[in-house]
Formats: sequence, structure tokens, C-alpha cells
Amino acid sequence: MQTFNIVLVEPEIPPNTGSIARLCGATNTALHLVGPLGFSIDDKHLKRAGLDYWPQVTIVHWRNLDEFLVAQDERKLKLFTTKTKRLYTEARYRPGDFLVFGRESRGLPQQVRDLYHELCFTIPMANPRIRSLNLAMTAGIVLYEALRQQQAVSTESHHHQSNQRHT
Amino acid sequence: MQTFNIVLVEPEIPPNTGSIARLCGATNTALHLVGPLGFSIDDKHLKRAGLDYWPQVTIVHWRNLDEFLVAQDERKLKLFTTKTKRLYTEARYRPGDFLVFGRESRGLPQQVRDLYHELCFTIPMANPRIRSLNLAMTAGIVLYEALRQQQAVSTESHHHQSNQRHT
Repeated sequence: MQTFNIVLVEPEIPPNTGSIARLCGATNTALHLVGPLGFSIDDKHLKRAGLDYWPQVTIVHWRNLDEFLVAQDERKLKLFTTKTKRLYTEARYRPGDFLVFGRESRGLPQQVRDLYHELCFTIPMANPRIRSLNLAMTAGIVLYEALRQQQAVSTESHHHQSNQRHT
Repeated sequence: MQTFNIVLVEPEIPPNTGSIARLCGATNTALHLVGPLGFSIDDKHLKRAGLDYWPQVTIVHWRNLDEFLVAQDERKLKLFTTKTKRLYTEARYRPGDFLVFGRESRGLPQQVRDLYHELCFTIPMANPRIRSLNLAMTAGIVLYEALRQQQAVSTESHHHQSNQRHT
């Protein structure tokens, strides 16, 4: 079965990437790291937060964002940003999708958000004085919404098959 | 409107509590800290991860878990642990609920899990070799599922009202 992909563009804070590696290992999600990274892959904070799980995770390295984007089928991309009104719960997630998250300090570059503005989604926040959630938390919330939708689809299709057997 | 409550029992790692404080501030969720805490409330990592947001967050301190539990209406409690099969998506969340999370290293005490075993829920993980997700990520995933359910309920009731106006 095809899995989801999490894409971190130029991540800066090692424990965030570590926590996301652990998330990816736990859910059989591939992790794509798009450079340049803000830390060394040997960083001790990265190790503490997730490197124990590193052997459990499929990691793909990309030199930069252009190289990554050129290689993708646009229909599989979903970009996450605070700069849109479209809710992440309105996205229809399918296995094989690439869930793309920008760097902690600045998010995704504006030109990329503009180019793919129909593919941008956000996590709603009630209090406008708080700018964003933690990156690792954001990735967890989005991925588990994607998995929940898949689970709902497979439960429905299972019910459908059961019904067919009984009619 | 009543908000959700996040309860951290004896948290140990300052940046997790900091990220969860930021989550609570962003969503108008009350944060309950149940002692003893594994760090000082002045910790610099706590500050970096969330204390900028501290004034935005309603924080309630409890001396210990017994004191907290005795004060609660059981019908509003939901406990999160890796030691159950009941999925967090099967819970029916209502504003005013207390979403309770154990410490990073050990989770909730077994006697509490036993006493409230009908109120325990878990986040499913496909790979059994990974023991758990990061605490802050876990709290984010659960709270946003609760908010998603609330949003779905209020959208339905809005549609219902709209239909009434038009018939």
C-alpha cells in the first residue's frame, strides 16, 4: 500500500525534525528533507528527539525546493501555511500525497504559495495573537487527519463489501 | 462558550509543556498542570517554546493527580494512553471536557488507567517498534480532533437552521 509523504522544507530546529521522524516511523510515512537544512544530521538534539527511530524511517533528501517541486506530480501536493483560509480538514487526502511544511521561522516562500495557491491549507486558530503552532505538532495534526480520512474510507468500503455479501 | 481543557500530569520536558501552552493559547483551551512538575516554571527551554504566549493562556495548577481527580466530574474526563485499543477518533468530545495526558517517560499511572479504563483512548500507530509519539504532538492531534468534531456539529446545526428558514 502506498504511504503518505511528509516534506520538510529547510527545517531549522533539530527536535522538530526528530519528533517528525518519530511520527513518520510510527505511521510508515516517508520523510522528505529539502535542503539546505538548518542543522547537521548528527545534531544531538535531533538524536534525542528522534534519531533512535531513524532506522525505522524512510528518508529522502532533496538538495533544494526547486529540485523537489520539479520532480512532483502537482495533483499529489498539499501545502500547509498560516497564509490561507482553506481548512486542512477540507482537503481530501489520498495515500501517495506529499504534505509540505515550510521552515519554522518563515513558512513556505511566497512565490511557492502563490504558484500553488489552490493547494494551500491551514490549521485554524481561534486566537489571532498567536502566529502559529509548533512545526512538529502541525505535521502530526495534518497527518493524523489524513490517516483518519483513510480509515473512514476503508471502513466505508468494508461496510459496502459486507453489505454486498449479504444481499 | 465553554472551552476544552488539556491536563498534563507531572510533565517532565519543558519544551513539550511550552508547545502545549502555545497550542492552548491559539485555541482558547485551558491548560491544567498537575504536579509535581519535572522542571521550574522559569526554565529557559519552556520560555523559548511557549512562555511568550504564557499571558494568552489560562493555566490552572494542581498539587497532585489525586487532588485533580477528586475535583472532576468523571463524565468530562478522557484519558490518553498507549495502553488501550480504543481509538481517540471514537471518542465524542464536548466543550468542557478534560483531555488528560501522562508524563513523557511513563504515561499515566496504571491504577488510574484501571480505575478509568472506559475513559481511555489511544492514537493508533502502524509500527509497533515505536512506542509513542511526542507528548506535545499527541496533545495537538487529540485537541484538533475534538475541535474538528465540534466544528462538524456546529456546521450541521447551522445547516439544520438554514433548512428550517427555507421550508
